[in-house]
Amino acid sequence: MNILEIIAKKRDNKELSKDEIEYFIKEYTNGNITDYQASALIMAIYIQGMNKEEITNLTLAMAHSGEMLDLSVFGKNVVDKHSTGGVGDKITLILMPIIASLGIPVAKMSGRGLGFTGGTIDKLESIPGYHTNVAIEDFIKNVQQVGISLIGQTLNLAPADKKIYALRDTISCTDSIPLIASSIMSKKIAAGANKIVLDVTCGNGAFMQTKEEARELAKVMNDIGKLAGKETVCIITNMNEPLGSAVGNNLEVIEAIKALKGQMQEDVEKVVLELGAYMIKIAGMGEDIEENKKKIQENIKNGKAYKKLVQLVENQGGDISYIENIEKFKKAKFKIPVICEKDGYIEEIPARKVGEISAKLGAGRMRKEDNIDETVGITILKKVSDEVNEGEILAYIHANDEKLGNDARDELNKIYKIGKEKVQKPNVILDIIK
Amino acid sequence: MNILEIIAKKRDNKELSKDEIEYFIKEYTNGNITDYQASALIMAIYIQGMNKEEITNLTLAMAHSGEMLDLSVFGKNVVDKHSTGGVGDKITLILMPIIASLGIPVAKMSGRGLGFTGGTIDKLESIPGYHTNVAIEDFIKNVQQVGISLIGQTLNLAPADKKIYALRDTISCTDSIPLIASSIMSKKIAAGANKIVLDVTCGNGAFMQTKEEARELAKVMNDIGKLAGKETVCIITNMNEPLGSAVGNNLEVIEAIKALKGQMQEDVEKVVLELGAYMIKIAGMGEDIEENKKKIQENIKNGKAYKKLVQLVENQGGDISYIENIEKFKKAKFKIPVICEKDGYIEEIPARKVGEISAKLGAGRMRKEDNIDETVGITILKKVSDEVNEGEILAYIHANDEKLGNDARDELNKIYKIGKEKVQKPNVILDIIK
Repeated sequence: MNILEIIAKKRDNKELSKDEIEYFIKEYTNGNITDYQASALIMAIYIQGMNKEEITNLTLAMAHSGEMLDLSVFGKNVVDKHSTGGVGDKITLILMPIIASLGIPVAKMSGRGLGFTGGTIDKLESIPGYHTNVAIEDFIKNVQQVGISLIGQTLNLAPADKKIYALRDTISCTDSIPLIASSIMSKKIAAGANKIVLDVTCGNGAFMQTKEEARELAKVMNDIGKLAGKETVCIITNMNEPLGSAVGNNLEVIEAIKALKGQMQEDVEKVVLELGAYMIKIAGMGEDIEENKKKIQENIKNGKAYKKLVQLVENQGGDISYIENIEKFKKAKFKIPVICEKDGYIEEIPARKVGEISAKLGAGRMRKEDNIDETVGITILKKVSDEVNEGEILAYIHANDEKLGNDARDELNKIYKIGKEKVQKPNVILDIIK
Repeated sequence: MNILEIIAKKRDNKELSKDEIEYFIKEYTNGNITDYQASALIMAIYIQGMNKEEITNLTLAMAHSGEMLDLSVFGKNVVDKHSTGGVGDKITLILMPIIASLGIPVAKMSGRGLGFTGGTIDKLESIPGYHTNVAIEDFIKNVQQVGISLIGQTLNLAPADKKIYALRDTISCTDSIPLIASSIMSKKIAAGANKIVLDVTCGNGAFMQTKEEARELAKVMNDIGKLAGKETVCIITNMNEPLGSAVGNNLEVIEAIKALKGQMQEDVEKVVLELGAYMIKIAGMGEDIEENKKKIQENIKNGKAYKKLVQLVENQGGDISYIENIEKFKKAKFKIPVICEKDGYIEEIPARKVGEISAKLGAGRMRKEDNIDETVGITILKKVSDEVNEGEILAYIHANDEKLGNDARDELNKIYKIGKEKVQKPNVILDIIK
């Protein structure tokens, strides 16, 4: 086998065999295939596409390119959850303790944020003492003890995906469905789950801008799941406005804690219920989606989900007094109100822009090596369809630099679109692809 | 401007502007654009293609990426000749002295051979003393003195083409008409000609395997010529069997000297007359092609063309006693006859295979840094359509290693295809694209 023949085949729109795809992934990971050869092949894949079998083989080859997390000790129904990324997306923090409280083991490795989207690990680290860098034995032990552990990527999962992902960024090959789908699924498979619920975000704050694109991505990921023997359900959710209220690291943790105490934003609740109900279903713990939703609501009401969060944090070395008293979380120096300038109804709060404003305040990373400021961000009080009056507070900017804070306030005010007619509350759950 | 946008445009099959193409060539030559980015763009160009304007802009940008030879001192009708490469192709050595003998200035930089095709410079260096590495002032002075100079590429011509050419080789992007055409034309334009006659070889011993491909390449190069203001004529010639008799460096020089003394192989003569007649025409020295052919034949007969070769060699420091007495050329140790094993008619002598056998003997380079053996090669006595009898000599192998020579003999015998029916002499001139 030889990389020149493989490149030529895809260049000529021919199907690549399993062996050819595995050869490419293995030799590229080893460094025996150069970046410029990989680059030519990736561009050919971008333009010519790949069929289901090719995408699945690519996914599996990338998944097996490094360490694989073995969760077989927890049986055959280990469910993972993944979001394709969004602004204000704190679903993992809320949903995973709920799932664990229902007796489904949660052993999850999460990532850090980049650009305008946040990462679960950054958020968790705003709880003092919480260890995200945990040895695999301890990670497994934690799950065995309290049924849940959320940590960072301490294994070298899917290194081929990391290399290809970084390369795609520099050669205008990011927005390709086969490449996005195989990237996401390879990490999930390497992370040991055998059942996967995917939150495919859709809108201006997401990778997929339209419902059609989101559906296509969802279908491809479902196909990979089927062919790879990993049951997969995709929930397409709205990411045109930020999810919930908080955008920023410890602000989102606080929102998640409140949610588990019963104070949940309407849109967040819809996503939690839908994703959670399908997780329960594919874990084999309940066929009826509406029944499953009730189980979730029940465990929030009776405090079991909240208790599971406390156990999780305690087990990872975190200071639970912060969970018990959210006032203890460190605050940004300035809390600047964003004042509404006219009467009307909120028509739009572009999620992507909100994410960018928050990142500029220090809540996000521009480059991998950047540090983030856990205290800064935005709290959204008024959401799309809400009635507002001149002088009302639309949102708060949390900043540690007054100038940056005032700039953020002005920018946020500018992007809040307020009209005269009431618009409908946007649907949160746009489609379910099983 | 930004390389990511340029890659994305071509990826999406959009036309690149002149500025975008110039930006890419300039920054890639400078090293500000990486190989993997260039690789992605080249693959996108390969798959999506380029229109006439884009190809011309690419050609001109590559031509201007390094030094440009200024031949304006010789007026506006400086004609260059180029072949897309073949086996036994010694046309430059024969044709250029003829052209110079007709009063048309010949100032030509040629290349070295690579793979199974030979290079004019390697051939010229088998004349003892001949300097191919000459300063530009001396090169110009030589042309002024005797009307002709043939040297190696002493200027850094079209370095962007060199970089892209090398990259294409490693990413399965060699056989793309826009990329081949712009590569050839950029070097010709940088080499200072304003009129160009191209010998587009076609067949198993050439880049272009079919007449259709050769015609397409010819048309694209003509288009570039027109848009770049360089009158261009393409002659499509047969390269299914080797051209003439000799394959190998000093063997081809000897054949060229004999040709200028009046002993010319039939196929070689046809190519010399056709290319030469068009060179005379576009140099403004004669409208009538048949008349021009007669002028060429006349200057061979009256010895003017041969005399021009002697002047050329003398002026470049070469030992003219070798030209006057070809027996002086160094010979290979072994001259091994290839004996015909049955009666019949020659049907095929695959040129590419002949080139490869000759290269294995040491006449060609596998890598740029290899040395070549000027004495080895093959002399073809029997050509396609000739009648042959068992025991007759088909060809000679010239070798310095007996084992290699015997192997070459056996291989050559194997590829000579002999049938019972007489086949027609193949056409040498397949088409003329003006």
